[in-house]
Amino acid sequence: MDAYAKGPLNKVRKADRASYDRETVHAILDAAPIAHVGFADKDWPMVIPMIHGRIGETVYLHGAKAARFAKAMGKGVPACVTATIIDGLVLARSAFHSSMNYRSVVVHGMAHLVEDPDEKTEALTVITDRVALGRWDEARPMTDKELKATGVIAVPIEQAAAKMRTGAPVDDDEDYALPIWGGVVPVHIALGEPVDDGRLADGVEIPRSVRLAPEHYRR
Amino acid sequence: MDAYAKGPLNKVRKADRASYDRETVHAILDAAPIAHVGFADKDWPMVIPMIHGRIGETVYLHGAKAARFAKAMGKGVPACVTATIIDGLVLARSAFHSSMNYRSVVVHGMAHLVEDPDEKTEALTVITDRVALGRWDEARPMTDKELKATGVIAVPIEQAAAKMRTGAPVDDDEDYALPIWGGVVPVHIALGEPVDDGRLADGVEIPRSVRLAPEHYRR
Repeated sequence: MDAYAKGPLNKVRKADRASYDRETVHAILDAAPIAHVGFADKDWPMVIPMIHGRIGETVYLHGAKAARFAKAMGKGVPACVTATIIDGLVLARSAFHSSMNYRSVVVHGMAHLVEDPDEKTEALTVITDRVALGRWDEARPMTDKELKATGVIAVPIEQAAAKMRTGAPVDDDEDYALPIWGGVVPVHIALGEPVDDGRLADGVEIPRSVRLAPEHYRR
Repeated sequence: MDAYAKGPLNKVRKADRASYDRETVHAILDAAPIAHVGFADKDWPMVIPMIHGRIGETVYLHGAKAARFAKAMGKGVPACVTATIIDGLVLARSAFHSSMNYRSVVVHGMAHLVEDPDEKTEALTVITDRVALGRWDEARPMTDKELKATGVIAVPIEQAAAKMRTGAPVDDDEDYALPIWGGVVPVHIALGEPVDDGRLADGVEIPRSVRLAPEHYRR
């Protein structure tokens, strides 16, 4: 089975919800709308939300070139990339057993700024198309100047673990007799009606990426 | 104006989207479904998703007592609590100006395990009621044994900053003439139909917390 090795950083405490399986880790990374990225800022941890995209065993992140951490990244800095999808509210008959259903992945690797223009372009295509499928080709192509000004960070996946909870609440046996509701409220990301900016050129209609978006986010 | 002081950790790079205003920081913390919490694990950062709740100037987190970091927390460890809400996909005519609308908060403080049972109970009430409003009182009360076994982490807010983007995309002037759609696709969290676990006691119906849930998540 193709799985990530268990190391000191990715060992998950509740084994029955953990997976080190490569396909599972990839699927969650690919389904999560954004990632939260952790760095050490001297003595303090820093966690910032970023949009991401995966190509093979590298997670790419879109961050401003002048971002505080990017400057240090020439040599590579230890990073943690965490992606989480909430799937349900788990209401047990006791507060103690209540929980959430979710899929999460924690990735560790050495983050560095991407300098190669081809690699940057490929990463930005994947990142853009994850926000809206097919949008990269619909949009006006990026100029060399814009590409230079866009910060892309690469985090090769060194260690990774997925953690998930699915299914109904698990109550203590005696609690099932109580007159209390137990079950799950499903959670998903939903998109509203698209709103144009009022400055569309004549004849421009809602594009395919926007029409596909609600389906694209059913993940 | 009641605002958090700007320190080395909470200075936001794009000033026009930043806020150090206490009310704004609180509102985003209170609206975000979960938080991502960062700690330093020797040389590596670790970011884990946790459910949270705020009481005054303290963010409480629900984490298993045996969680790796909890053990070190007796003395307090530097932590970063980040909460993010995605509000929209911002599709500009160029990929370069495309973005997301969001509300995010980054909080720094010294995390420690909560030992006092009254403080723990108060925190767990807030955390539980954020998942489903009024659920704490609906559920079977927590026993002393369960309370002891539940890990609650407190992070007093020492530094905090909110960062947000709202509104339409901002394209380069010349791009408005292009035959490309520009606008926003609104994003929100949606709840599906509640599913009970098939083991309800006779006569148990969908409770108020579940009926209120879709409204509760419109934040």
